[in-house]
Amino acid sequence: MKKLINSPQTLLADALRGVAAAHGQLSVDFENRIVLSTAPREGRVALVSGGGSGHEPLHSGFVGAGMLDAACTGEIFTSPTPDQILAAATRVNTGAGVLFVVKNYTGDLLNFEMAAELAREQGIEVASVVVADDVAVEDSTWTAGRRGVGTTLILEKVAGAAAARGWSLEKVQVLAKGIADAGRSMGAALTSCTVPAVGRPSFDLPEDEMELGVGIHGEPGRKRVPLMSAAELSHALVESITTDYDFSGKPVIALLTGLEEPR
Amino acid sequence: MKKLINSPQTLLADALRGVAAAHGQLSVDFENRIVLSTAPREGRVALVSGGGSGHEPLHSGFVGAGMLDAACTGEIFTSPTPDQILAAATRVNTGAGVLFVVKNYTGDLLNFEMAAELAREQGIEVASVVVADDVAVEDSTWTAGRRGVGTTLILEKVAGAAAARGWSLEKVQVLAKGIADAGRSMGAALTSCTVPAVGRPSFDLPEDEMELGVGIHGEPGRKRVPLMSAAELSHALVESITTDYDFSGKPVIALLTGLEEPR
Repeated sequence: MKKLINSPQTLLADALRGVAAAHGQLSVDFENRIVLSTAPREGRVALVSGGGSGHEPLHSGFVGAGMLDAACTGEIFTSPTPDQILAAATRVNTGAGVLFVVKNYTGDLLNFEMAAELAREQGIEVASVVVADDVAVEDSTWTAGRRGVGTTLILEKVAGAAAARGWSLEKVQVLAKGIADAGRSMGAALTSCTVPAVGRPSFDLPEDEMELGVGIHGEPGRKRVPLMSAAELSHALVESITTDYDFSGKPVIALLTGLEEPR
Repeated sequence: MKKLINSPQTLLADALRGVAAAHGQLSVDFENRIVLSTAPREGRVALVSGGGSGHEPLHSGFVGAGMLDAACTGEIFTSPTPDQILAAATRVNTGAGVLFVVKNYTGDLLNFEMAAELAREQGIEVASVVVADDVAVEDSTWTAGRRGVGTTLILEKVAGAAAARGWSLEKVQVLAKGIADAGRSMGAALTSCTVPAVGRPSFDLPEDEMELGVGIHGEPGRKRVPLMSAAELSHALVESITTDYDFSGKPVIALLTGLEEPR
């Protein structure tokens, strides 16, 4: 395994120190492993997201003015804990309430829901939106229902802008839910990732094959196919999305992104 | 070789069609393989750069308002031709002159110099700046003197801003030369790249070794060493830069970037 890290054990702490050193407009709560925006949020809705680390820039890279107010970073491919999420909500709430942006992943759903209950007990108004956009599989190894992937980025950007404009929690949530409902994603993989603490690839993929509908943690996708050209793959990916949702006559935001393995 | 391309033969043309489709603020001259900014440049200095493809976003990704006015794209790891560069200079010159930003690479030097002569014959005022910032090696496989790498990005950004403010060609060139002279870079590689038309890695690097001072085309660096931790590598890279140039007491722009192999 070749990775530019110090050790699997210190990886997350090292990364958070790097975020703090490189980005003066962010502040990092090292104890709770939360990346916070220093943008003003007095009187407006705050957005909180988070998830397992290893998917950067999601979510810590999307903290800042007009996007997330806080991101809770879990261990690699591991959900943040309810107390982490509660600490984030407490830090960013200014009375207008907090929207949790959650990717559909069993651990995230449970922990964000538990944090929402704890926050409400403390008088913090919390609403949630769940992203479940990945058309690849109906149920995957660690998820009931579809996984949440790329639509999360668009949702955080648009809902973050609405919050910055002073929209109410209810309105921001309705907007966010509309984006989540209309978002679809589909992926493919040429190679497997290697979880640092494991030290070997999560799966083997022969030199002449690719995986269609890859999971974000290396869980199985739809099927393995012979290596396609870029044009063939583009067609396959778009078709799997357009057969799932009728976009005809609607404006579309196309987002092409990667799950490049961090080095 | 696993790459998300159609074929090595159509790779550059496909990429240029993609740039044109994705970026409405750019225009692409497909015949001459030039990416052009549509930002206004009437009465101001224009910046032109270019080089072999395969180093994206350098340079075509840095075309736009306040940066490059045009980028000439060569074949993979191959310099653009003098007539390409001349076509770019002709397209962007509005009378205030053109600055060529050239990375120190034998083919680029020759072709940009020839293009400058041809442009001057046509009455276009041309100045050049050469970036040779890589402290790794004094002479590499295809370069006499140091290679030009990361400082190019900072130079294009700062000199592009000066041009946008209406600075004269002479002043923009002096500024650019100051940046080139004070810029230093150093790299490392965990793996080799694979040139699409070749289809096999440019060099072999054992699983427990890394290359210090990697070349941007896979040419040899300084030396091979056992795999280091991120902290050890950071120290080695910074030390090789600070022993080459005395930055003490001066403000420094630190740029950390990759030569990630395009997929």
